[in-house]
Amino acid sequence: MGKHYLNTLFAPKSVAVFGASDRIDSVGQIVFQNMLESGFQGALYPINPKSPEVQGKRAYADIADIGEQVELAVIATPPQTVPGIIGNCGIHGVKAAVIITAGFGEAGAAGAALEKELLEAARRYNIRLIGPNCLGIMRPSIGLNATFNKGGANTGNIAFVSQSGALCTAILDWAQSNDVGFSSVVSMGSSTDVDFGEILDYLVSDANTGSILMYIEGIRNARSFMSALRAAARIKPVILVKVGRHAAGSKAAMSHTASLVGADDVFDAAVSRVGVVRVQTITQLFTAAKALSCGFRPVGKRLAIVTNGGGPGVMATDRAADLGLTMATLSDATIEY
Amino acid sequence: MGKHYLNTLFAPKSVAVFGASDRIDSVGQIVFQNMLESGFQGALYPINPKSPEVQGKRAYADIADIGEQVELAVIATPPQTVPGIIGNCGIHGVKAAVIITAGFGEAGAAGAALEKELLEAARRYNIRLIGPNCLGIMRPSIGLNATFNKGGANTGNIAFVSQSGALCTAILDWAQSNDVGFSSVVSMGSSTDVDFGEILDYLVSDANTGSILMYIEGIRNARSFMSALRAAARIKPVILVKVGRHAAGSKAAMSHTASLVGADDVFDAAVSRVGVVRVQTITQLFTAAKALSCGFRPVGKRLAIVTNGGGPGVMATDRAADLGLTMATLSDATIEY
Repeated sequence: MGKHYLNTLFAPKSVAVFGASDRIDSVGQIVFQNMLESGFQGALYPINPKSPEVQGKRAYADIADIGEQVELAVIATPPQTVPGIIGNCGIHGVKAAVIITAGFGEAGAAGAALEKELLEAARRYNIRLIGPNCLGIMRPSIGLNATFNKGGANTGNIAFVSQSGALCTAILDWAQSNDVGFSSVVSMGSSTDVDFGEILDYLVSDANTGSILMYIEGIRNARSFMSALRAAARIKPVILVKVGRHAAGSKAAMSHTASLVGADDVFDAAVSRVGVVRVQTITQLFTAAKALSCGFRPVGKRLAIVTNGGGPGVMATDRAADLGLTMATLSDATIEY
Repeated sequence: MGKHYLNTLFAPKSVAVFGASDRIDSVGQIVFQNMLESGFQGALYPINPKSPEVQGKRAYADIADIGEQVELAVIATPPQTVPGIIGNCGIHGVKAAVIITAGFGEAGAAGAALEKELLEAARRYNIRLIGPNCLGIMRPSIGLNATFNKGGANTGNIAFVSQSGALCTAILDWAQSNDVGFSSVVSMGSSTDVDFGEILDYLVSDANTGSILMYIEGIRNARSFMSALRAAARIKPVILVKVGRHAAGSKAAMSHTASLVGADDVFDAAVSRVGVVRVQTITQLFTAAKALSCGFRPVGKRLAIVTNGGGPGVMATDRAADLGLTMATLSDATIEY
């Protein structure tokens, strides 16, 4: 079996960081520092036309100067420079790009025109894009942290795919103190090109991924999403939060990632039919991550509650009944023990 | 207007603590220490027949030895001693008692018989009882902390009335670090005698109480509860958690406080009709306490969300729509500002 066509995105052998910088707390500084500190095992090239060195590494003015094959471009330069960079990357054989830069479709008419230009450049050279306007991606097992998150992620078997960078940051913060690890963290941003369906398709066949969590505002290609979701849910637990449930929420999502949001009840019926668990709150998503990462899968629906307080025990019993769980009847031997 | 008949319970001038002790971490030690440290301004008498002094204060062998009027008895002695103590209190004119001791109706047939004996003694002398099997009561504004909670409560205007001592402890812990204060904290335990209706009736006319939070497993006197609830909700915000919503939860409540639980949808309809807010989780109860204690009351139903993350903003907008709130349209002047 040949490699998946998104392999250069998720498992690149060489990465160029456009906009890599020494300017403290700039996005380009944090992204390049993350790549250095996460121990990426492939070749790593900072690109900055104004500086011969970035964070102690030899920097390049342009992709042409590198003289080696680059598989993935990570871009954190001003928006108006991005279409040109993508064109240049195409000429030099780059196959995938993570565009962290914001200021495209979500930023009015001028931004939308720039996004069209960007997409045309990518299509011309068959470059696949994550973003723009995203936190970036992480693949802890190969030391890839192409994000501007402050802090990395532990290696684990959960894939988290999110249309909100803020939620990536929140779940990554929480995961550190809760000892939860990830196979992949993908902040999709506007998902102008690569959408949920294609990412799911990759994660289904990714041996490092045991379960999939998603935060969704809107789906561009519903058909490919549903078909990938069906395939994924058949072999791995899939848990998602879908927002924009109401008109007001949809409007907020529109101004956030310019996502069009369909009828919520249709979405709800479709995902429950393919066996995906939809949760409503971040706490539920965190709890799901914790439950999935512990590796324990319950058998059956009977539950025992251990508590030192009567009231909390009654509340937990109520909640279990809400969810259709049955209280276990402990045997005499268990009680004795 | 004369004083409310529960005034000796909620605002006693003199308190005797039966079972007050020097034995570290015994219930009687903690209760008496709490009374000393909370700065109770009335007369305070430790009662312990085995010791002439408790925690540096002269102790009494019996209520008869005090020779002064005692308004409230706080009892933390073994269960089999309690009916006799209540009888003795009655003879010496005590009008109210908080019975912290467990081991009555919730503890099988022998406990139930003891509880019957206890109630008969109380009725004979017209003593009103909180408990048994409770954490106790607090009235921070008069320095009354007749509980075995570790730590006190700040003075504030929230009354919290709970059938679960564990939830009292939880909300008191949380309140300390969240700077939330209380007018009253009442752990009802089995509510063998004084039930929710009578406590509500007192709190309605209590000038220190601005709002009322309740944790309910079951109501003994539904008629007096509903009538007090209607009166309370008309003039103060009332927020409650009612558990035992399902058969399984009811069974758990039965073994906890021996409460009989009625049909949940009837309860739900009744409380919403009188204008009481019913919440489902402890987090919602905490949030309500925080919102009520800040003293700010929103006018109207329009909401603005301030966030530095698009995703959380969309989720909050969705949730607001769930609750029937409308997103505010900010004026140009507000946006400018």
